[in-house]
Amino acid sequence: MAIEAQTNSSETTGKPIRCKAAICRNPGEALVIEEIEVLPPQAWEVRIKILCTSLCHSDLTFWKMPKPFGLFPTIFGHEAVGVVESVGEHVKEVEKGDTVVPVFLGNCGECKDCKSEKSNSCEKAPMKVNPGMPRDESSRFRDSNGEKINHFLSVSSFCEYTVVDIMNLVKITEPIPVETACLLSCGVSTGVGAVTKIAKVEKGSTVAIFGLGAVGLAVAEGSRLSGASKIIGVDLNPDKFEIAKKFGVTDFVNPKDIGGRPISEVIAKMTEGGADYCFECIGLAPVMQDAFSSCRPGWGKTVILGVEMHGAPISINSSDILKGKSIAGSLFGGIKAKTDIPRLAKMYLDKEIHLDEFITHQVGFQDINTAFDLLIQGKSLRCMIWMDK
Amino acid sequence: MAIEAQTNSSETTGKPIRCKAAICRNPGEALVIEEIEVLPPQAWEVRIKILCTSLCHSDLTFWKMPKPFGLFPTIFGHEAVGVVESVGEHVKEVEKGDTVVPVFLGNCGECKDCKSEKSNSCEKAPMKVNPGMPRDESSRFRDSNGEKINHFLSVSSFCEYTVVDIMNLVKITEPIPVETACLLSCGVSTGVGAVTKIAKVEKGSTVAIFGLGAVGLAVAEGSRLSGASKIIGVDLNPDKFEIAKKFGVTDFVNPKDIGGRPISEVIAKMTEGGADYCFECIGLAPVMQDAFSSCRPGWGKTVILGVEMHGAPISINSSDILKGKSIAGSLFGGIKAKTDIPRLAKMYLDKEIHLDEFITHQVGFQDINTAFDLLIQGKSLRCMIWMDK
Ligand SMILES: NC(=O)c1ccc[n+]([C@@H]2O[C@H](COP(=O)([O-])OP(=O)(O)OC[C@H]3O[C@@H](n4cnc5c(N)ncnc54)[C@H](O)[C@@H]3O)[C@@H](O)[C@H]2O)c1
Ligand SMILES: NC(=O)c1ccc[n+]([C@@H]2O[C@H](COP(=O)([O-])OP(=O)(O)OC[C@H]3O[C@@H](n4cnc5c(N)ncnc54)[C@H](O)[C@@H]3O)[C@@H](O)[C@H]2O)c1
Ligand SMILES: [Zn+2]
Ligand SMILES: [Zn+2]
Ligand SMILES: [Zn+2]
Ligand SMILES: [Zn+2]
Repeated sequence: MAIEAQTNSSETTGKPIRCKAAICRNPGEALVIEEIEVLPPQAWEVRIKILCTSLCHSDLTFWKMPKPFGLFPTIFGHEAVGVVESVGEHVKEVEKGDTVVPVFLGNCGECKDCKSEKSNSCEKAPMKVNPGMPRDESSRFRDSNGEKINHFLSVSSFCEYTVVDIMNLVKITEPIPVETACLLSCGVSTGVGAVTKIAKVEKGSTVAIFGLGAVGLAVAEGSRLSGASKIIGVDLNPDKFEIAKKFGVTDFVNPKDIGGRPISEVIAKMTEGGADYCFECIGLAPVMQDAFSSCRPGWGKTVILGVEMHGAPISINSSDILKGKSIAGSLFGGIKAKTDIPRLAKMYLDKEIHLDEFITHQVGFQDINTAFDLLIQGKSLRCMIWMDK
Repeated sequence: MAIEAQTNSSETTGKPIRCKAAICRNPGEALVIEEIEVLPPQAWEVRIKILCTSLCHSDLTFWKMPKPFGLFPTIFGHEAVGVVESVGEHVKEVEKGDTVVPVFLGNCGECKDCKSEKSNSCEKAPMKVNPGMPRDESSRFRDSNGEKINHFLSVSSFCEYTVVDIMNLVKITEPIPVETACLLSCGVSTGVGAVTKIAKVEKGSTVAIFGLGAVGLAVAEGSRLSGASKIIGVDLNPDKFEIAKKFGVTDFVNPKDIGGRPISEVIAKMTEGGADYCFECIGLAPVMQDAFSSCRPGWGKTVILGVEMHGAPISINSSDILKGKSIAGSLFGGIKAKTDIPRLAKMYLDKEIHLDEFITHQVGFQDINTAFDLLIQGKSLRCMIWMDK
């Protein structure tokens, strides 16, 4: 393969790399593997060779989003792990050959937010869905006609090579399997982080989790770690219940099986008045409202992690909130990428958190659309997509 | 006056007391002073002689509420101070002659909520707007035709005598003026409490307060105490700005004077990106949404204290909440009546908090409707209504 030959030589540095990318040209259409050019990294940027990448529901949400909100053509993908191929000017933090995890939420380390214990949203690198690099929005991707292709979430990992800003990159020195590192890139870190950093679940708490995908089950894992006494999983897909037990879920509710009663009533009954903490891990405003209704008056806290699929607002009863409830939301579960991802990797090595169980399927890059089918059908938690298979 | 003669004798114990009450028979109508009968306290109840009472905006909100939501005839009033006239069976905590402050939010001291540091909503005595006593909803008031009159917020202080459950009563032993104790009964405690117990404002924080009534200015007072570096007051009434300075407000915004720009934009500019804490102290859902928009991404917290005047829901942009913002609400500002009101009284004696400045007007009971006019016209913070004048 011409591409491989090219990249095995150090002569790629400073030059465009021709390689394969899974491109989406229209909302909801199957990705097509095309040959593209990935431009060299500019100042503060790093070009990385993706080793493996996985599909998060946020990819699905933006993949389905109609124009003009959705920007196409795009290279999706934001959970990944890779190896540094070359670095742009000023980059000191990583060097060629380093294993790195790209992240959608930057962490400059120097702004007011990065320096605060209370925030993980970086002022210098706020989350950007499209179109390009975080600093100037320009693209590093060209298709075979020389046309610009949009980036996605500052990562675009459905591609053999990608260019990521150093603010969006975490160096991995812990000896963990690459596919495990990949999981820490978004969904799993989000779920675990939300429990400890946003909700601050205490020992003995009751927790209700709406949506048992990778994010929801990572919330379960975090809740188990925090000593929650009851972890209620809510999902429409009964197949999720079996696997959920592995992550500490103790009780299950399928909204289809409660005879039309409001879910909040069922959860109030299971928890003597409402869950201490509710997490929304689906991305539907009506479910966010259900989660809020299901948390306990007095101190019940609802944490929103789902990215609303239709951009719909959440409607909250103002007299309910006066009863001492609260609602918070979080990108990346409050995780500060550069310090917390290495910490989670260490917790995995110390056997404190389960990660392997999140990987339910593995495919080669050519079969990337299978990963989409599996997630849409609710069959996978995370499907690992290997670039060299 | 026949009534006084009757109450000066200990023979009132166990018997109905005839006295004057300001009754509201229809939503929005002026109160009418009528002679009523106040039945003796039953088990766990205390009959108190009101010394003075003040008007809170929550009275106005329910006074205006159309039937069938509003329940009439009613004796409004829930900020007050009084003296114990007699106690029902089992009451040990107070005795005849004690100075007491009735509160709308019970505090049994024994339930899960009362025992928790995290809550001030009592499981045994949740807030009840109508119709009667907290335990059985029965009324202790009869009009001259023997017809039942509804209670309000478990207090009904617009009356020479009222009956209150011991869970809703705080004994005052600190030597503070009675009218100052009266202020601690609702609005002022709510505002101060919300800052320290709900928002937990830190030194150097920026605070935006929507609505500069007694509640909003008590938030200012609490914020000043907590060392906030900037306290922005937002009000449509320019007259509030002068008095607000006394309570620590440093900056003012009148939404009418910002040339149609969104208030959140103005506050973002004044605070380098949004206030750390926003408080809604008006009771309007659109303003609650403005408050939420005005708080800072990353960690901005919005605290809802206003009782929505029309019962409207709050609509929150779900992508805004993902940016790390949160919204919480609170009745009584997280204050646990039995422990926190004495603490606030002590802070007043120690000259740590200003209270006198909240009393802008004083009237006799006969002129209670003047207190309504003053609050409606935005002329008063708290108008003290003296029962014996
Ligand atoms: N906040 C963040 O930083 C962040 C990070 C990663 C993912 N996300 C979001 O988290 C959400 C979950 O992501 P994921 O990858 O775990 O998704 P997923 O598709 O694997 O899981 C979603 C689960 O929700 C269930 N579900 C769908 N509709 C439901 C309903 N009405 N009631 C009950 N259950 C329902 C599905 O059966 C599925 O099990 C998505 O909205 C995603 O965009 C947010
Ligand atoms: N949560 C609780 O436990 C609790 C306790 C007491 C009072 N409250 C509620 O707090 C709120 C305030 O009570 P208060 O007694 O201080 O009332 P108030 O009438 O004294 O003050 C309200 C202030 O809001 C201003 N205002 C009205 N509409 C406005 C707008 N659109 N924009 C800007 N300013 C506006 C008015 O000019 C006034 O200064 C009410 O909703 C009341 O019901 C709640
Ligand atoms: Zn993701
Ligand atoms: Zn930063
Ligand atoms: Zn209690
Ligand atoms: Zn009040």
